[in-house]
Amino acid sequence: MAVRHYTLDFKLSAPADHSATVRSLQSIFQEQEMTETVHDTEGHGYLATFIGKNGRLAILRLYSHGLVTFDLQCCEADDLAQVDNLLDALEKKMKALLNGTIQRVKRLPALQRGAEVDRYWPTADGRLVEYDIDEVVFDKDSAYQNIKILHSRQFGNILILNGDVNLAESDLPYTQAIMGNGREHYAGKEILILGGGDGGILCEAVKLKPKMITMVEIDQMVIDACRKHMRKTCGNVLDNLKGDCYEVLVEDCVPILKKFVEEGRTFDFVINDLTAIPISTAPEEDSMWEFLRLILDLSIKVLRPSGKYFSQGNCVNLTEALSEYEGLLRKLSCKVDFSKEVVCVPSYLELWMFYTIWKK
Amino acid sequence: MAVRHYTLDFKLSAPADHSATVRSLQSIFQEQEMTETVHDTEGHGYLATFIGKNGRLAILRLYSHGLVTFDLQCCEADDLAQVDNLLDALEKKMKALLNGTIQRVKRLPALQRGAEVDRYWPTADGRLVEYDIDEVVFDKDSAYQNIKILHSRQFGNILILNGDVNLAESDLPYTQAIMGNGREHYAGKEILILGGGDGGILCEAVKLKPKMITMVEIDQMVIDACRKHMRKTCGNVLDNLKGDCYEVLVEDCVPILKKFVEEGRTFDFVINDLTAIPISTAPEEDSMWEFLRLILDLSIKVLRPSGKYFSQGNCVNLTEALSEYEGLLRKLSCKVDFSKEVVCVPSYLELWMFYTIWKK
Repeated sequence: MAVRHYTLDFKLSAPADHSATVRSLQSIFQEQEMTETVHDTEGHGYLATFIGKNGRLAILRLYSHGLVTFDLQCCEADDLAQVDNLLDALEKKMKALLNGTIQRVKRLPALQRGAEVDRYWPTADGRLVEYDIDEVVFDKDSAYQNIKILHSRQFGNILILNGDVNLAESDLPYTQAIMGNGREHYAGKEILILGGGDGGILCEAVKLKPKMITMVEIDQMVIDACRKHMRKTCGNVLDNLKGDCYEVLVEDCVPILKKFVEEGRTFDFVINDLTAIPISTAPEEDSMWEFLRLILDLSIKVLRPSGKYFSQGNCVNLTEALSEYEGLLRKLSCKVDFSKEVVCVPSYLELWMFYTIWKK
Repeated sequence: MAVRHYTLDFKLSAPADHSATVRSLQSIFQEQEMTETVHDTEGHGYLATFIGKNGRLAILRLYSHGLVTFDLQCCEADDLAQVDNLLDALEKKMKALLNGTIQRVKRLPALQRGAEVDRYWPTADGRLVEYDIDEVVFDKDSAYQNIKILHSRQFGNILILNGDVNLAESDLPYTQAIMGNGREHYAGKEILILGGGDGGILCEAVKLKPKMITMVEIDQMVIDACRKHMRKTCGNVLDNLKGDCYEVLVEDCVPILKKFVEEGRTFDFVINDLTAIPISTAPEEDSMWEFLRLILDLSIKVLRPSGKYFSQGNCVNLTEALSEYEGLLRKLSCKVDFSKEVVCVPSYLELWMFYTIWKK
């Protein structure tokens, strides 16, 4: 049973007269038979809490610098029309009381807390966003990660790995971007995909008549879940791990890459669909950067001289992490050049950077 | 001075032992020298509020159905590292206490309430989304509406009319969609733009060497603000209201359309950039639907037999409003056919429907 949390805030151009405002608002809470507690804030404005029927909790706070915040928490089974009426009444009374000094009234869509279906999946740059998710389609822990597939009304099914939105069925622009946005010719070429368990890249690449695609995905459970629930993304390519022009190896890509290097096996395109650039350089991220560098080094080694390496970067707002990555590219043992491109991936709710890298 | 509002929720598979949990958490608040008030919820779980230094307010609630919610409100000038520590401590202790019964821990990015720069602009389908807005570039009331231009780090400047996100400098896909996404030939054609004060359509249309573009925008202040602050959208086309192949009339489009009908003046393309489809059919929206129908009727009248009428619809999730609009199209006095297209407009954070309409 979820809790709905409403907020209603009034930004004032001048501090309000606390006692007059409070007296005037009290009648609203009295009508609702709510029990008031006034708290001592030690000089930090007026603060009262109100407990009502059905466990409703309201918090009224008047800050001395000219801000009035109001919170209302209730169960989703509560009479929501009545709750809306209470908020309407409060807004109306505040406007009547403080007309002229109100700079902004802000009433946000209610937060849904503890709901069966979690609709909040913050962006990579840490913003609060609510998705139109109405169903948990799949939710399991594999040996490697938590795998969720959630249904969004507009984006279709969304694959979420360890809490990060990976790809939705609406996100063909992601797949197109990480394949070079139509600038490359795949016909007759040999392609290596690192990761890519959702099958999106494999599905699009197969259509372009390559000679051979090798995909190395570590997590069988991702493949199985996407085969079943992300068919707009993967089509039927995950129905078999081998096709006319492709093979999926369910393995850790690092030893496979090392083996390819040893064997002298090379590719025209290497597509890294594994990991986003770590967002910080804090100690706990060090191993992530090391991993990224290792993958990069090995990938460049299996890349033909005329080949291209494609990778996602991160959201465009994480400029420091992107700079760090570009610094890494400049310091590789094998000299490379790169280009980058900003792409709008529908379900990400933020712009995303993609890289193309080639040998100098 | 803004208030930061943190939430930290624990969804449990079984109700927690209230008294044991509460006793164990109390030490965290005692260390912070917060004053506790336990409230009588009349059987609706445990509820305590804590007031701390600097006016900090914490709310701990244990619902009997197995949900624990925690709120922390503090001023943005507060010691935020200390606040993070408090949340960390609480999360750690809860995990130690209720290990095994915790299904989900949810700690959302803090809500910023009453901030100078408002970052919350809910989507058309009513979801809470936070933008990466860092500056109020323009904020004035014209005779017709409130006009805001806010700066987003990733989307550039965003035009917001009466609280609705209209267009950002990143949103060329909107302009391309409402011009037919490259499917039409504009060279040598006569074009009528209704609204479009941001100059985006005008700027793109001028590049296509049409014979003549007539744009009818009611609000001079929108034109002036966009000329100055939305130059990635409008280029230099708004620097003059008349150019080699275009003319901007700062007028209400209804009398202008009526005059065109009277004069028998017609166009190859009519682009309605005025209004989104009203989201409801409630009484207060009736006049919006009437307005929409009026514009549609007049527009079809000034459309050449081979012409096309383009319009935005609304977000794809408002299926009822879109159906209503399509019903309207089927009932026009002049028979029309239409096609529709779903487009991802970067700054909208939701998919949007666009319509192309032509005479049968």
